[in-house]
Amino acid sequence: MLRIAIDAMGGDFGPEPIVEGAIQALLASKKEFHAILVGDSAVIKPMIPQGLLKKVSFVETRDVIDMHESATDALKRKESSIYKAVDLVKNGEANAVVSAGHSGATMSLATLRIGRIKGVARPAIATLMPTLKGGYTLVLDVGANVDCKPEHLFQFAVMGEAYAKEVMGVKHPKVGLLSNGEEESKGDEITKEAHKKLLKLGSFIGNVEGNNIFDNSVNVVVCDGFVGNIVLKTSEGVADSITKIIRQNIRRSPVAIAGAMLMRKVFKILKTQVDYAEYGGAPLLGIQGCAIVGHGKSNAKAVKNAIFQALNFADSTINTTIESELLRYKI
Amino acid sequence: MLRIAIDAMGGDFGPEPIVEGAIQALLASKKEFHAILVGDSAVIKPMIPQGLLKKVSFVETRDVIDMHESATDALKRKESSIYKAVDLVKNGEANAVVSAGHSGATMSLATLRIGRIKGVARPAIATLMPTLKGGYTLVLDVGANVDCKPEHLFQFAVMGEAYAKEVMGVKHPKVGLLSNGEEESKGDEITKEAHKKLLKLGSFIGNVEGNNIFDNSVNVVVCDGFVGNIVLKTSEGVADSITKIIRQNIRRSPVAIAGAMLMRKVFKILKTQVDYAEYGGAPLLGIQGCAIVGHGKSNAKAVKNAIFQALNFADSTINTTIESELLRYKI
Repeated sequence: MLRIAIDAMGGDFGPEPIVEGAIQALLASKKEFHAILVGDSAVIKPMIPQGLLKKVSFVETRDVIDMHESATDALKRKESSIYKAVDLVKNGEANAVVSAGHSGATMSLATLRIGRIKGVARPAIATLMPTLKGGYTLVLDVGANVDCKPEHLFQFAVMGEAYAKEVMGVKHPKVGLLSNGEEESKGDEITKEAHKKLLKLGSFIGNVEGNNIFDNSVNVVVCDGFVGNIVLKTSEGVADSITKIIRQNIRRSPVAIAGAMLMRKVFKILKTQVDYAEYGGAPLLGIQGCAIVGHGKSNAKAVKNAIFQALNFADSTINTTIESELLRYKI
Repeated sequence: MLRIAIDAMGGDFGPEPIVEGAIQALLASKKEFHAILVGDSAVIKPMIPQGLLKKVSFVETRDVIDMHESATDALKRKESSIYKAVDLVKNGEANAVVSAGHSGATMSLATLRIGRIKGVARPAIATLMPTLKGGYTLVLDVGANVDCKPEHLFQFAVMGEAYAKEVMGVKHPKVGLLSNGEEESKGDEITKEAHKKLLKLGSFIGNVEGNNIFDNSVNVVVCDGFVGNIVLKTSEGVADSITKIIRQNIRRSPVAIAGAMLMRKVFKILKTQVDYAEYGGAPLLGIQGCAIVGHGKSNAKAVKNAIFQALNFADSTINTTIESELLRYKI
């Protein structure tokens, strides 16, 4: 049975939504699994329903890495919930770790304690961006690596392709390189060099632009972590602004309020389609194990879905695929 | 009286929306101006109402640079509408040029024929992005320059600050540097170096993230053209997807259709707030003159507003400000 280590302390809202998410996952999962909750068990244990206790174990700690602390200090904080949760994977006691805590700390610890897959120079955080027709586009890297070299981008493409195939279930994924134009002459120097390397990859469809992330023309979008983070934040900013503009203007008119009530179902569909809680978290690709990095503001649903992602990941052969593919291409 | 050269042939939809926009601008402008329409006058002239003919002159040409042609060829196409329109500014016959044609060609021609402001290494395209509370954030560069050096980003900041002050009328503009985190330790190497240089600039508020473009926390956002283009396309993609998801789901339910009718005013406000036609075009900053680069799909309203932008720009002292500021900072 798969065993999932969960940093029960790391989120912005304390242990409640994390533990609640773990409970929901245990109750709803089609795959049976065992949850290892890392945190203050005096607080956590009473939250677990009696009937589930046999599917849960506890690793005791009270230390939490705060969101404002430096990620580099994380390596010294051996008693922290995220350190202990990561080490459960390192030591083979868990198949995956899920954390909604300090993402920089999670990344560094997962990379340095669990180790990289052979051939991977830099693990990358991949995020799922909702698309127009439903479903998701995988974008990587979204924050782990700034100043990438072309070969790093190539590796991200191979890792993204493997994730799309093995975890998202896309048989023939299309992989695109994010640039400022579709023509192969477009891009900064690194992107143009990466483009040349990517021509070797059968799934590569060429350069894509920012709007292609959302229009279902591509499954995996590759960029460096600097650009990826900006894409992520820009998207959040636009979606947030549109929602707020609509809300503010509805409030100003009773007619519009009535209209909004009639449109409730439409807004609900929209909300579901763009809600990150629907997919849960961002996988860190390229490590010899599985780590899902959740949003600090994760609610129980997001944690539940992050655990589902971890289960799908841990149940796949993605890491051996990444290793053999990178060996095959020798980039 | 200000004289505005207008490439009447360059847009995706031929001369109609361009000429119609020029007519609307002539009728609505508070500042009197003279329009010089560059194109096939046999087609254009009959479109101008008799009463406006004294405010319009015509420069004859039938050659148009197609959107699919290379920008580098533009310099040889001396008979093209954009070449002739730009040369009117170069020769002092017009104060500004407005084009909805091939933007690469417009940029290269404006830079090479009109020339750069002393101290400016690379002119930049600046675009206005709509914000949550109304108004705009100026983002530059959005496509002219990939692979920028830190000093280029510094120059963009000085140019953006001058535009915000002198054309947008923001007394004390806040200038931010786009990065993957607010801390000054965040960013790729170029961004971190640029951050250090920007500390000299009084209006610099530090790094900003993608979402800050829309939340009214900053007036001018500086980035290289590679990132800027991706930000622009990503924003368009998100806004477009949300609109389409709402529309599709409204169509599926009569109740939602009724709701949408009651919410018509709200959607209209939203549309106006995010419609690029409301501001018209993107100024090319850093040339010894004024060039407004319009969207290829510009409608008459967009052209009208692009002409208004050109009038405000040409009527300001922005270019001397840019020159003296750059001289002062000696970056």
